[in-house]
Amino acid sequence: MAKVKVAVLGATGMIGQRFVQLLEGHPKFEIAGLYASERSEGKRLGDTLKVRDHVFMDDTLDMRIEQLDVARIAKASRVAFSGLPSDLAGGLETQLAQAGCAVFSNAAAHRMDAYVPLLIPECNAGHLDMVKKQSTFKDGGFIVANANCSTTGVAVPLKAVDDAFGLEFACVSTYQAISGAGYPGVPSLDIMSNVVPYIRSEEEKMETEIAKILGSVRRGKFIDHPVEFLASCVRVPVIDGHLESVTLRTSEDAEAKDLVKVMDEFRAEPQKLKLATAPLRPIIVRSEADRPQPALDVNAGEPERAKGMSTVVGRVRKKGTYFKMFVLSHNTLRGGAGGSVLNAELANAKKLL
Amino acid sequence: MAKVKVAVLGATGMIGQRFVQLLEGHPKFEIAGLYASERSEGKRLGDTLKVRDHVFMDDTLDMRIEQLDVARIAKASRVAFSGLPSDLAGGLETQLAQAGCAVFSNAAAHRMDAYVPLLIPECNAGHLDMVKKQSTFKDGGFIVANANCSTTGVAVPLKAVDDAFGLEFACVSTYQAISGAGYPGVPSLDIMSNVVPYIRSEEEKMETEIAKILGSVRRGKFIDHPVEFLASCVRVPVIDGHLESVTLRTSEDAEAKDLVKVMDEFRAEPQKLKLATAPLRPIIVRSEADRPQPALDVNAGEPERAKGMSTVVGRVRKKGTYFKMFVLSHNTLRGGAGGSVLNAELANAKKLL
Amino acid sequence: MAKVKVAVLGATGMIGQRFVQLLEGHPKFEIAGLYASERSEGKRLGDTLKVRDHVFMDDTLDMRIEQLDVARIAKASRVAFSGLPSDLAGGLETQLAQAGCAVFSNAAAHRMDAYVPLLIPECNAGHLDMVKKQSTFKDGGFIVANANCSTTGVAVPLKAVDDAFGLEFACVSTYQAISGAGYPGVPSLDIMSNVVPYIRSEEEKMETEIAKILGSVRRGKFIDHPVEFLASCVRVPVIDGHLESVTLRTSEDAEAKDLVKVMDEFRAEPQKLKLATAPLRPIIVRSEADRPQPALDVNAGEPERAKGMSTVVGRVRKKGTYFKMFVLSHNTLRGGAGGSVLNAELANAKKLL
Amino acid sequence: MAKVKVAVLGATGMIGQRFVQLLEGHPKFEIAGLYASERSEGKRLGDTLKVRDHVFMDDTLDMRIEQLDVARIAKASRVAFSGLPSDLAGGLETQLAQAGCAVFSNAAAHRMDAYVPLLIPECNAGHLDMVKKQSTFKDGGFIVANANCSTTGVAVPLKAVDDAFGLEFACVSTYQAISGAGYPGVPSLDIMSNVVPYIRSEEEKMETEIAKILGSVRRGKFIDHPVEFLASCVRVPVIDGHLESVTLRTSEDAEAKDLVKVMDEFRAEPQKLKLATAPLRPIIVRSEADRPQPALDVNAGEPERAKGMSTVVGRVRKKGTYFKMFVLSHNTLRGGAGGSVLNAELANAKKLL
Repeated sequence: MAKVKVAVLGATGMIGQRFVQLLEGHPKFEIAGLYASERSEGKRLGDTLKVRDHVFMDDTLDMRIEQLDVARIAKASRVAFSGLPSDLAGGLETQLAQAGCAVFSNAAAHRMDAYVPLLIPECNAGHLDMVKKQSTFKDGGFIVANANCSTTGVAVPLKAVDDAFGLEFACVSTYQAISGAGYPGVPSLDIMSNVVPYIRSEEEKMETEIAKILGSVRRGKFIDHPVEFLASCVRVPVIDGHLESVTLRTSEDAEAKDLVKVMDEFRAEPQKLKLATAPLRPIIVRSEADRPQPALDVNAGEPERAKGMSTVVGRVRKKGTYFKMFVLSHNTLRGGAGGSVLNAELANAKKLL
Repeated sequence: MAKVKVAVLGATGMIGQRFVQLLEGHPKFEIAGLYASERSEGKRLGDTLKVRDHVFMDDTLDMRIEQLDVARIAKASRVAFSGLPSDLAGGLETQLAQAGCAVFSNAAAHRMDAYVPLLIPECNAGHLDMVKKQSTFKDGGFIVANANCSTTGVAVPLKAVDDAFGLEFACVSTYQAISGAGYPGVPSLDIMSNVVPYIRSEEEKMETEIAKILGSVRRGKFIDHPVEFLASCVRVPVIDGHLESVTLRTSEDAEAKDLVKVMDEFRAEPQKLKLATAPLRPIIVRSEADRPQPALDVNAGEPERAKGMSTVVGRVRKKGTYFKMFVLSHNTLRGGAGGSVLNAELANAKKLL
Repeated sequence: MAKVKVAVLGATGMIGQRFVQLLEGHPKFEIAGLYASERSEGKRLGDTLKVRDHVFMDDTLDMRIEQLDVARIAKASRVAFSGLPSDLAGGLETQLAQAGCAVFSNAAAHRMDAYVPLLIPECNAGHLDMVKKQSTFKDGGFIVANANCSTTGVAVPLKAVDDAFGLEFACVSTYQAISGAGYPGVPSLDIMSNVVPYIRSEEEKMETEIAKILGSVRRGKFIDHPVEFLASCVRVPVIDGHLESVTLRTSEDAEAKDLVKVMDEFRAEPQKLKLATAPLRPIIVRSEADRPQPALDVNAGEPERAKGMSTVVGRVRKKGTYFKMFVLSHNTLRGGAGGSVLNAELANAKKLL
Repeated sequence: MAKVKVAVLGATGMIGQRFVQLLEGHPKFEIAGLYASERSEGKRLGDTLKVRDHVFMDDTLDMRIEQLDVARIAKASRVAFSGLPSDLAGGLETQLAQAGCAVFSNAAAHRMDAYVPLLIPECNAGHLDMVKKQSTFKDGGFIVANANCSTTGVAVPLKAVDDAFGLEFACVSTYQAISGAGYPGVPSLDIMSNVVPYIRSEEEKMETEIAKILGSVRRGKFIDHPVEFLASCVRVPVIDGHLESVTLRTSEDAEAKDLVKVMDEFRAEPQKLKLATAPLRPIIVRSEADRPQPALDVNAGEPERAKGMSTVVGRVRKKGTYFKMFVLSHNTLRGGAGGSVLNAELANAKKLL
């Protein structure tokens, strides 16, 4: 069976190249074009490398970057994976949907749109159907967004907890990697032997996105989850992997071991459908005293194609009526390109491509 | 007037040398001896340096380390500043108090003792009187403890908020510097491009200590403050300065600007008494979007002698019924040696030395 | 054909675990026992992990550490790979050779012994025969040493240059990774935002070892190479990978491109024999302006089993009568465990096991 | 006596702000204006801070940036300190000299000009007279350049050695701090847990500059010193302070202790003239096994105003006919703004202002 042709937008950036990494040898998708801004036109991908821990195939490195052009992209590809900066992404993704493309975007521009699913297949696979209400859907075009990297990390375990015990309150402080700021991103003078308690718009994104993702769809509308959710976001000198300190309260009573159990055993639609980039275990709960750690756990996930797609949880403990735990997620894989690839795999399995 | 003779215990360690730094040229205290374990006997202080950002005077560098010996210490000094490891500190500090010394300790061993004040003069100066109930007090000996470094950072701003609006709930995630683990402390292989979500006993210490510090004394007993307080502690690759992400709820309604005002204007006993190591402003609230940062704010504090003694607060904001803010405190000055020196200055002002 | 049974000594350390990593699924060798000091007796390997970038197999993680015991090791294994600290290694390796073991050691203890080959198969495969002169050889026991990690990195390219143009003078300044100091090794307080221009005995090792490795064997004796060789060794905050800045002079005239060519085309005994851990290209010369870099090049090497075994060279340039270039080598693979595994593969191919 | 009015060009950058730091309270100079590109016009200096380890005075922080304008600068100031980027510096500095300004520049643009002294007062104070040959001198305008940061570090000790024993050959490998690249400068993703063996044009600058600085003036021309000098330049994750590994050969025979002595006792024109920013000891030779280190030695220098102006040397040792040593110099003070301020102080003492 022929593979679905896909485009990668923003292919000279960190997220764009994570898309390329995940699409190398993909069983369902095939890269038909790499796109970026005008000034990269014609460059070899290999001359623009941002990803440092993946060895790309020679053929991939020799692919040439093309200039972003809606007509050209729509002609060459059924699917567009967007790693564009948000300011650029807004208009261009709309145009691509109008031109009949299925757009799977890492950008923030459309996440809160009325009919755009903010999709994490382990959390809200059912939201995907909302694309049918998008005006461009009749001609095959639609937009699906993945969540912010720091939202994604915490959403999967919170979903498991919410399903089992009802989530009332969660307070999150993040320890976010520098790769989340793209390249060149954070100047070394700002972050060496330092942490920076501010990432523009990040807390607002987390707070609005969690409510939508854990929320429901009723009468064709997204209804926010009522959880009281508070985020504080901090950049730390780590290359990849967002750690998050989570304090939460549930509506039903439980013990720490009960939370461990429901998270550890949590399986969802991507696992049922055996999607190519779905981790066998969406959540891995570690029992060591000092885990998860970015240096040790950021690439957790099996099979090979799902490396970096598991969320790793540790130190689940209870104090009074609150639970505390730490969550780690790969910000440019699970919380970036990997999220959108998984979204596209779900759409493909659901015959939307 | 003659200066009070003081001993520094653990003078070859990080905290011990912060004591020495603060005692150089002190208006009230004079170093009468430096003490450490047997294997350092006779060494020049200058050959055991751990503090990297202070230039010691030549005379200080030439001081010789003596072996820890209760009788010798008690003979030479009225006051003992203890930067000993907790296992060693327990017994030795008791013996020193029995020998008539006023012990000001950075160690955890006696912090929860029935009559030992866990003293942060800006928070609970009144607790100091409890030393009079210690059995050794009749002969002049007593123990005063300073709080854990991560406790201290958050205690001062929480005190200001509690005084004004009543503190009901606080949830803290820390970003703790490597100097907090002493020397050699954290192996570089463990922390380079990494964060470690575990510091042994640290969360328990914070949770019990905050209740005692913000608490009251009734009928000769310490009564815990009823705040619901939750801590999650993480080591980050920063040299000095603990940043803490704080989420809190007050019993009285208020706006973010009200909290800013009470913290910024907060003054307490050490400021009234103009103690030598007291910062003019115990809390400095910054208005920039991205502060406080360890690299920029760790040494905040005036006058010169109080550098690193101010707590820096930033990003005070309200969401729903909760407040969020970031707090930064120098862990080996304000949260270590500086805390105990300030405690001794208070005791001196209160004629207890 | 049955695999050769091997022991790993020092299995709880960084180098010991690199041995284990390389021996997992090895085509010729099979781990018969893991050994370390008394206090690790009975521990699961998985509970002592030092290597952070390799995912060990579950069976490997469950292996138990045994106490170092010459008789027990010699009974269980034909080969002993030694990742022991040098002070311990000296006596124990001698005893193992006396007990009939073929010892392949990463320790410095025997490197300069009269009949112990200081073996880098790409440089001096012929030296291996010297083991026959060891007194224990008649009973099957002998010792082969690999070189210091910083020596190994520069030795392979220097060999290629020496063969072609004659090496007269080389001056090397190193940029050495913290993993070279083992675990816990370098305290983070010493190396964060710092470099340390001193590594005990390292310069002396490099200077003596290069002469032996590039030297010859005449009348049963090692004869030093006459190159004038100067080393300056510095620790830098990098996890893995020693970079070295090399300035050299050859006896025959040449251009930079000639050096590039001889290094790039350099193949030696391990490549001819297709040893399992031999990289297809011992030296990879990169043409980019800013390579090699530890973050990008430390794991260079094909096939999969030889990852981290290629030496990467870049910025080969000529000024006056001198050449300048940078060299990068994985210090715990090529310059540590990988070197000894390759040595053992050579010995096996030469029917010495 | 009225202070000389000075302008700081590039006042929003790292070097520009080091100029401001050194000019605060300067006994001879007074800031008359801060200048930068058009887009900074009107900004408070305090809102553009790049220097992290100096606490500026409130009055300084409140100074406003003006747009670069030759006429305006020349009218307001006798002296212009230039921290401009080299591309901009070339033309602008020429125009300022034509307008009668004495320009002291940190930029590379004019360093190799026929009559521009490449001045390090400890090395070649006599070169300053060459400004009289500049065509603009008759109207009071002239240009004096300071050397590249990595050149400066090594030039002072090499001068001491050359004077005493004759310098024939020197080979230098650098460990250069990120502040040398300005702000934003080096992306954190490029340098965290990494070193980068390439800094554009740096090696060429060092090689040409050393020859000019150590050279002489004969018949109104700069004559290069004949030393064979080779540089290899590497960026390392250190905030401030360039370490350099130096291997050298002298024409006269000497022992390591002789080099130590001549460097330690080295005094030159700035010390004789007691210039305000001149360190009492231009070269501090340390005897410890592991010094100099950026973290410990970067701010060496007395008096207070000369902090960071001493060059620290360590590990002076001899092997065969070569000497090896390490050299550390503050790249944005001694090797940047401090160098030019010292140059201006010399010019002032020589009645050229």
